[in-house]
Amino acid sequence: MSGTEGVPQVWRNVRLATLAPGLPGIGAVEHGALAIRDGRILYAGPEADLPGEALAGAETIDGEGRWITPGLIDCHTHLVWAGDRAQEFELRLAGASYEEVARAGGGIVSSVGALRAASEDDLVRQTLPRLDALISEGVTTVEVKSGYGLDLPSERKALRAARRLGALRPVGIRTTFLGAHALPPEAGGDKDAYIAEVADSMLPALATDGLVDAVDAFCEGIAFSPEQVERVFGRARALGLPVKLHADQLSNLGGAALAARHHALSADHLEHTDEAGAAAMAKSGTVAVLLPGAYYFIRETKLPPVGLFRQYGVPMAVATDANPGTSPLTSLLLAMNMAATLFRLTVDECLAGTTREAARALGISSEVGTLESGKRADLAVWSVERPAELVYRMGFNPLHARIRGTR
Amino acid sequence: MSGTEGVPQVWRNVRLATLAPGLPGIGAVEHGALAIRDGRILYAGPEADLPGEALAGAETIDGEGRWITPGLIDCHTHLVWAGDRAQEFELRLAGASYEEVARAGGGIVSSVGALRAASEDDLVRQTLPRLDALISEGVTTVEVKSGYGLDLPSERKALRAARRLGALRPVGIRTTFLGAHALPPEAGGDKDAYIAEVADSMLPALATDGLVDAVDAFCEGIAFSPEQVERVFGRARALGLPVKLHADQLSNLGGAALAARHHALSADHLEHTDEAGAAAMAKSGTVAVLLPGAYYFIRETKLPPVGLFRQYGVPMAVATDANPGTSPLTSLLLAMNMAATLFRLTVDECLAGTTREAARALGISSEVGTLESGKRADLAVWSVERPAELVYRMGFNPLHARIRGTR
Ligand SMILES: [Zn+2]
Ligand SMILES: [Zn+2]
Repeated sequence: MSGTEGVPQVWRNVRLATLAPGLPGIGAVEHGALAIRDGRILYAGPEADLPGEALAGAETIDGEGRWITPGLIDCHTHLVWAGDRAQEFELRLAGASYEEVARAGGGIVSSVGALRAASEDDLVRQTLPRLDALISEGVTTVEVKSGYGLDLPSERKALRAARRLGALRPVGIRTTFLGAHALPPEAGGDKDAYIAEVADSMLPALATDGLVDAVDAFCEGIAFSPEQVERVFGRARALGLPVKLHADQLSNLGGAALAARHHALSADHLEHTDEAGAAAMAKSGTVAVLLPGAYYFIRETKLPPVGLFRQYGVPMAVATDANPGTSPLTSLLLAMNMAATLFRLTVDECLAGTTREAARALGISSEVGTLESGKRADLAVWSVERPAELVYRMGFNPLHARIRGTR
Repeated sequence: MSGTEGVPQVWRNVRLATLAPGLPGIGAVEHGALAIRDGRILYAGPEADLPGEALAGAETIDGEGRWITPGLIDCHTHLVWAGDRAQEFELRLAGASYEEVARAGGGIVSSVGALRAASEDDLVRQTLPRLDALISEGVTTVEVKSGYGLDLPSERKALRAARRLGALRPVGIRTTFLGAHALPPEAGGDKDAYIAEVADSMLPALATDGLVDAVDAFCEGIAFSPEQVERVFGRARALGLPVKLHADQLSNLGGAALAARHHALSADHLEHTDEAGAAAMAKSGTVAVLLPGAYYFIRETKLPPVGLFRQYGVPMAVATDANPGTSPLTSLLLAMNMAATLFRLTVDECLAGTTREAARALGISSEVGTLESGKRADLAVWSVERPAELVYRMGFNPLHARIRGTR
């Protein structure tokens, strides 16, 4: 859909949510046009100002007043998993808490067993329907974390499967190494020894394979301590890799400040983050990735400090956290609705959070996330009267067209 | 998909959630088969016991171990509406309550203006995408309420549009007259006079048109009093029409007991229902229709008394309440997830609540809602390993096939 090489494709009679940083709100252009050439945005702005070079020999499409947004970006998923945890869901309905399920040997460990047993082909096959669900809603970039392998061959298998998804579908895949997700059963409770293996052995090997776009860790009582996270982050920075952190989801271990100290691209979840954490994130430019699907699914009651993030100017992104244990959610539109309904994000914040700020959380702002000339032509065209409908509706997909720019 | 006339279609190698009343839980049959002839279920049970008449000349389909459930039934929707209320959603995000929005002249009244201005064709055109969203998830019967017209021609237009949906798509439509939904602006605040018009003029006329399968009312401080509801119900019963009630959603006006006194098919919402109400419903066989989408969307905190309904043996159904103001939800699968996550219904209760009990809430149990021989062949075939997946996942549609039996 992105046009023949060298020939511009021009959408006229459209409304644009450019999300351009210089413009207020969502950077709306009511009487807009958008021109694409060779998979890049040539022009995005008022139709009246369309430049001549966008018109010469162009293929023109009448957008009939539809809205165009940047292609959506799901900046936090654990999309490559095997099996499912529907049975555990039934257990939770019978009253067991997330932590109780984890301690009872269910939880992440059951997904680890299933992923280790699956072949790489199997992982790809099981993940594609979930990826297709995201793509069907205009998603053009998906971050995928490892973390159900927890040994080198299994983590490699998961990251390779994730990368193959990007060859099988017109979507950008960003892979994040999350070896420090949980302690594998064979570690015999020795978290320090496992973290040493993650930092000194697994991470360098996978980085050499070119499979790691970023490094993540789970900082929590049921996972790893700040000191253990520092160990992993230190190695990541030595390798020149950006870091991210699952921080302050179930308790406040100072994860937000820890992430900020390491200039993390993002700190994610953040229900228990305090004012010092928010201030530190603002200073380091770390994005707050909000994950309302997990908040909803585990029936959390502590809200992330959205007011503090606004007050300190912390950029906010919104993602699905798609995973089998705490957020079996494969709709980024629904994640937006939950961010608005449950966290009281405004419509503009939800739209920025799944485009411009999500790109920032992945360190790919120069390429995608806004409708600006020079950026990759990753677009979503919506049959809606106003962008608020994308946030307001539940279980409805108004996508008209999706364009993924060639590289 | 329901086979040539007289020729049976047989699904072998399937698992059945029959929901048959005599069986425990969801009435599961692990090694099942299902035979259809002339749009009716000829047989549903163990594959080993398939009768000879189901096999003679049958078209056989290998179900590859998939699960078959009754076609899903959405027993409470306001699906025929015009325009949307995304702008009001933005207002609520700025802090206004549902009641404040209603008192400020927004709310239902804005939908009334939009519906009155729309033609019948327009209503059909605007509603079809929402109906298609439901159908895509295996829904085979949808209840549709009027209540945005609030005068005879507009209510008639809405009910006629609803009936036309059933001719345009392979789906059963049950129409409910909800003239007593809200006070129209031209009534000048005189609720009694409007109710007299509903009961003495609109209802008899629409019943004569054959457009009314059931009669509903909204019993609430912001809507109509129990006495006003009685007036409408009295006329409905005189006309031989079954009744339903929007009861105890925002406060306890004794709506559940009122519904029970009139042997209502269902009482719906019920967040504020007390023990006496639950006991009365059990006695009258009135179904409790739970609407978690509205609970979620308006951020209600009072949970419906699910424990009391279980204790007294009140049947529970689950529906979308699809409407533009308080539940813009067009996914019955998501309604099930919300019923489990927010109201703690079990998986079995969610599945029964969108099949067998939903049929009961519409008074069509003898026709649909279970997989039993003689019933209409309304089926959904799912690519899942266990029925719990239908409730557990969010924003994912594992429907493999959908069959709507011919009448
Ligand atoms: Zn996560
Ligand atoms: Zn309703």
